Amino acid sequence: MRARVFVTLKRGILDVQGTAVKRALEGLGFTEVKDLRMGKVLEVELELQDAARARSRLEEMCQKLLANPVMEEFSVEIVDNGTRPTLPERARGD
Amino acid sequence: MRARVFVTLKRGILDVQGTAVKRALEGLGFTEVKDLRMGKVLEVELELQDAARARSRLEEMCQKLLANPVMEEFSVEIVDNGTRPTLPERARGD
Repeated sequence: MRARVFVTLKRGILDVQGTAVKRALEGLGFTEVKDLRMGKVLEVELELQDAARARSRLEEMCQKLLANPVMEEFSVEIVDNGTRPTLPERARGD
Repeated sequence: MRARVFVTLKRGILDVQGTAVKRALEGLGFTEVKDLRMGKVLEVELELQDAARARSRLEEMCQKLLANPVMEEFSVEIVDNGTRPTLPERARGD
């Protein structure tokens, strides 16, 4: 079972890194960027078959280790259960 | 238009941070984690209406600034065009 865990700063917390990247993009002419926030993504491969169980374990990992509950929020996405990929088509960097 | 950009180390590159997190999880009893890789996610809000145009601009941003083409790969996901959210249901950390 493959899953993705997103850990991002809560909305109220100033995202210094995201602000710096947005400014750098503007300097390169990418003025269409209205907002940009940076976070972490964890691509996880689990030895579990049940999606509900996987989600619950990943949420537990976030609470215990992966996210700082004061400043960060997290979300879990089950990517596939080994048989059926559910990701939208993606363009890979070469 | 909202989009997400993922920047991750290429498969051949050792992910030291991911390895450390995997080991820490094992220490906490999460032994079902077979593989774990860490990357960056950028949540971007663009002043663009056309999804194809947005994707193309975001890929350009990755090539010019966001990703290191030697070590990293990137992918772009259009999350919504302002009308219809296409994200799967997600569990938010409080």
